[in-house]
Amino acid sequence: MPVETIVREVGTFDEESRRVSSAIDEFFTGLLQPPGDGRERLFEAMRHAAIGGGKRLRPLLTVAAARLFAIDPERALRVGAAIEAIHVYSLVHDDLPCMDDDDMRRGKPTLHKAFGEAEAVLAGDSLHALAFEVLAHQATHEDPFVRAELVLELAKAVGPAGMAGGQMLDLAAEGKGLDLGEITRMQQLKTGALIEYAVEAACIMARLHHDARTPYRGYARNIGLAFQIADDLIDHEGDATAAGKRTGKDAAAGKATFVSLLGPERARQQASLLVEQAIEHLQEHGEEADLLRAIARFAIERKH
Amino acid sequence: MPVETIVREVGTFDEESRRVSSAIDEFFTGLLQPPGDGRERLFEAMRHAAIGGGKRLRPLLTVAAARLFAIDPERALRVGAAIEAIHVYSLVHDDLPCMDDDDMRRGKPTLHKAFGEAEAVLAGDSLHALAFEVLAHQATHEDPFVRAELVLELAKAVGPAGMAGGQMLDLAAEGKGLDLGEITRMQQLKTGALIEYAVEAACIMARLHHDARTPYRGYARNIGLAFQIADDLIDHEGDATAAGKRTGKDAAAGKATFVSLLGPERARQQASLLVEQAIEHLQEHGEEADLLRAIARFAIERKH
Repeated sequence: MPVETIVREVGTFDEESRRVSSAIDEFFTGLLQPPGDGRERLFEAMRHAAIGGGKRLRPLLTVAAARLFAIDPERALRVGAAIEAIHVYSLVHDDLPCMDDDDMRRGKPTLHKAFGEAEAVLAGDSLHALAFEVLAHQATHEDPFVRAELVLELAKAVGPAGMAGGQMLDLAAEGKGLDLGEITRMQQLKTGALIEYAVEAACIMARLHHDARTPYRGYARNIGLAFQIADDLIDHEGDATAAGKRTGKDAAAGKATFVSLLGPERARQQASLLVEQAIEHLQEHGEEADLLRAIARFAIERKH
Repeated sequence: MPVETIVREVGTFDEESRRVSSAIDEFFTGLLQPPGDGRERLFEAMRHAAIGGGKRLRPLLTVAAARLFAIDPERALRVGAAIEAIHVYSLVHDDLPCMDDDDMRRGKPTLHKAFGEAEAVLAGDSLHALAFEVLAHQATHEDPFVRAELVLELAKAVGPAGMAGGQMLDLAAEGKGLDLGEITRMQQLKTGALIEYAVEAACIMARLHHDARTPYRGYARNIGLAFQIADDLIDHEGDATAAGKRTGKDAAAGKATFVSLLGPERARQQASLLVEQAIEHLQEHGEEADLLRAIARFAIERKH
């Protein structure tokens, strides 16, 4: 690939990533205006969790994939915000003392540390419901069939056949020696399903037939795994300040990871291979896929 | 009202209530078939919470309201099951040690007691997502506009403007002396919003214009409050065995309730008045509303 293409992509990536992050903050700021009736604390807790932090990878993926099909970016952003609301709720519940028991997230105290456990449960539940409210709203798409399908596929990606099922596999894995196939399966459910949905949602908005979505889902599946391997490498290398959260915790919990099974060098190679494969899925596309290509490269180049 | 009408209604109520309860159990049994891949424990936890227990008031309301508009009872049952999945998830999270810290529910150990706290969080989250999956599925209604509106209104009823917001008001009320207006508001969000949705969902399926839904929402709002007052009376009278859960806990927590503010006699009168008002909203209807009328009477006659 010519150097100028990579330079253009990276420029695109930084700029678009900042633009999407600030648009997502703006969306949540508008959505989570505290009412004046005793529920302020719930809204403040939701704002603490949802505003100002994270890489906003999932909304960025939706916005980038929407560009392939010339979908209205405002609508893509609404869908991306719904997906981010789900991601944030899952982090809030995952950090609870009865789950991973984490104190820091995105460089801030976790929600139960800042607001209390009951508030963290309720704020997570509220963000979960809001995601579906945003998707089902007419402003998201004029075609109710598209809205209903966006809801259906998100619900599958989030529930026991997706993210929640993966979290259960992760819980069940503590102290057990999972093999590479089992870890891949667990991660595909726990984090992969929502990342895949972030790309598929753009296909749904474009009314793509199920079969026509295959390359885009393939792209998403590859970068989902690449991101996870990169996360394991960051956890393994262990700079908590840069990561904004506790590191080294997988090793401490005796959990097998891609890095513990493959070693850091082979894990890095595997992630690179996944990114190459992800980009190959986009070969039918020209410049309009540059942002998706840049996201794929970012997956393994990032330091936190 | 002639005695034979009441006798017919009561017959209808017992029979229909049993029929709906067993259909809901059947629906969850089919939906929650444990997969053979390490997620069994999650599915078992969801089954523990969702199958075999409770009055199934919400699905019964949806089925009863659907009868007014001659809606396919199978579809009404799917919607009712989605609502019950939400109700069950809210009970599971509400029972957690960081929330109400309850040991018994529906005559069985609460989910975190039987399966662990992390499993209870995840099973609740899973049931939450499944509810939206069921609603958005084509089998629920042939018109995607109806499916999208079912999702939109459920999300509102469940999120920070509904149930979760009410739970926050309830949390914030501990140790504070709420007045009657504040308790009514809290209950309208915490339990009323979902009960109102159970009736409104039938109106949505019947493609009723928003204005035309007013009497049915009025009916639901009245019986929602009547049910809550009846719950307070049961809690006050305190027979844990019949109630299937800990009683007297509101008094122990120093929480104001309808009974603590009005006294049991006036609370009982208020509940009766609400039931009468609920039934008045149905005056345009004949026999097809008998089940809704019977449910309203059951609200205050039940002992658990």
